[in-house]
Amino acid sequence: MGSDHNRNVTIAMIARLAGVSVPTVSRVINGRSDVAPGTRERVEDLLTTHGYRRRSPGRRPSSALIDLVFNDLDSPWAVEIIRGVEDVAHASGTGTVVSAIHRRTSSAKQWLDNMRNRSTEGVIFVTSMVAPPLQAELHRLNLPVVMVDPAGVSLQENPTIGATNWAGSLGASQYLLGLGHRRIGFIAGPPQLMCSRARMDGYRAALNAAGIAVDDALIRPGNFYHESGYAAGTQLLGLADPPTAIFAASDQMALGVYEAVRKRGLRVPDDISVVGFDDLPEVRWCSPPLTTIRQPLAEMGMLAARTVLRLANGEKIESPRVELATELVIRDSAAPPKQP
Amino acid sequence: MGSDHNRNVTIAMIARLAGVSVPTVSRVINGRSDVAPGTRERVEDLLTTHGYRRRSPGRRPSSALIDLVFNDLDSPWAVEIIRGVEDVAHASGTGTVVSAIHRRTSSAKQWLDNMRNRSTEGVIFVTSMVAPPLQAELHRLNLPVVMVDPAGVSLQENPTIGATNWAGSLGASQYLLGLGHRRIGFIAGPPQLMCSRARMDGYRAALNAAGIAVDDALIRPGNFYHESGYAAGTQLLGLADPPTAIFAASDQMALGVYEAVRKRGLRVPDDISVVGFDDLPEVRWCSPPLTTIRQPLAEMGMLAARTVLRLANGEKIESPRVELATELVIRDSAAPPKQP
Repeated sequence: MGSDHNRNVTIAMIARLAGVSVPTVSRVINGRSDVAPGTRERVEDLLTTHGYRRRSPGRRPSSALIDLVFNDLDSPWAVEIIRGVEDVAHASGTGTVVSAIHRRTSSAKQWLDNMRNRSTEGVIFVTSMVAPPLQAELHRLNLPVVMVDPAGVSLQENPTIGATNWAGSLGASQYLLGLGHRRIGFIAGPPQLMCSRARMDGYRAALNAAGIAVDDALIRPGNFYHESGYAAGTQLLGLADPPTAIFAASDQMALGVYEAVRKRGLRVPDDISVVGFDDLPEVRWCSPPLTTIRQPLAEMGMLAARTVLRLANGEKIESPRVELATELVIRDSAAPPKQP
Repeated sequence: MGSDHNRNVTIAMIARLAGVSVPTVSRVINGRSDVAPGTRERVEDLLTTHGYRRRSPGRRPSSALIDLVFNDLDSPWAVEIIRGVEDVAHASGTGTVVSAIHRRTSSAKQWLDNMRNRSTEGVIFVTSMVAPPLQAELHRLNLPVVMVDPAGVSLQENPTIGATNWAGSLGASQYLLGLGHRRIGFIAGPPQLMCSRARMDGYRAALNAAGIAVDDALIRPGNFYHESGYAAGTQLLGLADPPTAIFAASDQMALGVYEAVRKRGLRVPDDISVVGFDDLPEVRWCSPPLTTIRQPLAEMGMLAARTVLRLANGEKIESPRVELATELVIRDSAAPPKQP
């Protein structure tokens, strides 16, 4: 009954009542940002008063696009984030335009020119930092911008989706303590990223809470990549009093430790336990399968897509920074320490 | 000098001379497919005769899009192909819309509706097979379609980019023979995919050429996934006269063999050599790093993007099926056979 009534309300009728053009009403209905706030409000009021029913509630128009922008597409978790964004976007009739800007101004400018001509609904950046000129230009375009930030804590004002780095690191360290380890090596991420600090602090907090003094000789710098895990693992295994377990702040570094262990003629977890951080798809297929802290990358992508679509619809969001829970995934790379 | 002359030739002038509308001339210039062949020819002739200069030669208009469609985004090589397509598309001012249709009719239809409303330049499918109804609809839309097919040999008429599966498999087998192996196990891919047959045939051809009889007990079925490699590896290691090397027709199955070797208390390559096929990014970080046959996935994506943009421009392509060369990548997982 309501729907019969609603179907009689046309866009043309609303346009006439609001004193604006038909395309302007369409823009309001489609949640586009290029409508003056006063006009939008007047049109929205009339739509509500007259019970206008959008063709398909909660859906974007089928020609809509969102932009998903990476610095580089070679990061091992890129496809997980794409998968999450695409899943939500596709279901709402929205296309996902994937771009890589390679941290280059020229490439970012090319993307911006390209994007401006096809009226995207909003932009998701997978990075800790959008360059200020790009940020200013997006602000000028009045486009919703959401950041997915597996690595840092954004200092910018855009809504940001992250993961609970500190809690995840605490959990991994407590798991190793629970197995009986007392000398636990830690391989850190790049110090300039906030997530590196959060993961280091979670490790320290777990040791402190267990009444174990932090031995700085067991903490090594890394950069999240394989080679740094291999180098740090080699150093830790070469100590006079080596650790019985190593917690690496990224999966790739944990796999570097695997290689250091193998080169020394030792075995994971028989001789030494290893735990990573990320839960990249491939660590299930390592030998042995890696125990690690899962970052919910696909879910972070899904939430980012939902957030950008809501912002494009003119909705308010609750919090500028959301952290999704990490989770300990127990596989075969950690065991009680070897009895001497 | 030429350019001064050219700038005086306007689209309006060409339209008047050809007796068509200005938008029709634009469509021809932009390589759109929705122009009658006779009209296109007449307009192209006039553009050439009068030396009309396209704004930026060889470039798509900056609002252009191409669609890159996967069955699923969880395949480990998806990001490599996205990277290649995006690289070429981005450089020519074209956005890459990434979609997953999950082999579901409803999902494919949703994608098609979505795509139809944003006038894409063309479509790249990453699959061996496009469902006939979808194929018919794309044909009706007269859209360029290119297939990237790491797994099969397409039976369809669309231009297809693949890799040299037979030659790659021959090379891997010859490499193991060259190290001195005579009992080489082979783990095959799914028999319904042409690439599985090509890889099996390359293995057989290498043994035959070396005068070694193929022992069917050393050939095991697999499905390209980790679990099947683990199962087949376990069986091969359990034989009364086990192989000294195992060649798996995918990297994921090779990693499954790693796990079977580890569970048996043996080591790669000291006790048994392992070679894979694909060169996924992560196999560099295995322990030991995997020797494998590289499929040039990013390059296949680049070529697919170039082909679809050329087709969208009305160009002819040379060959309906192109295979890019595979390459043996030697790392640490194969060594001469252990002396008994």
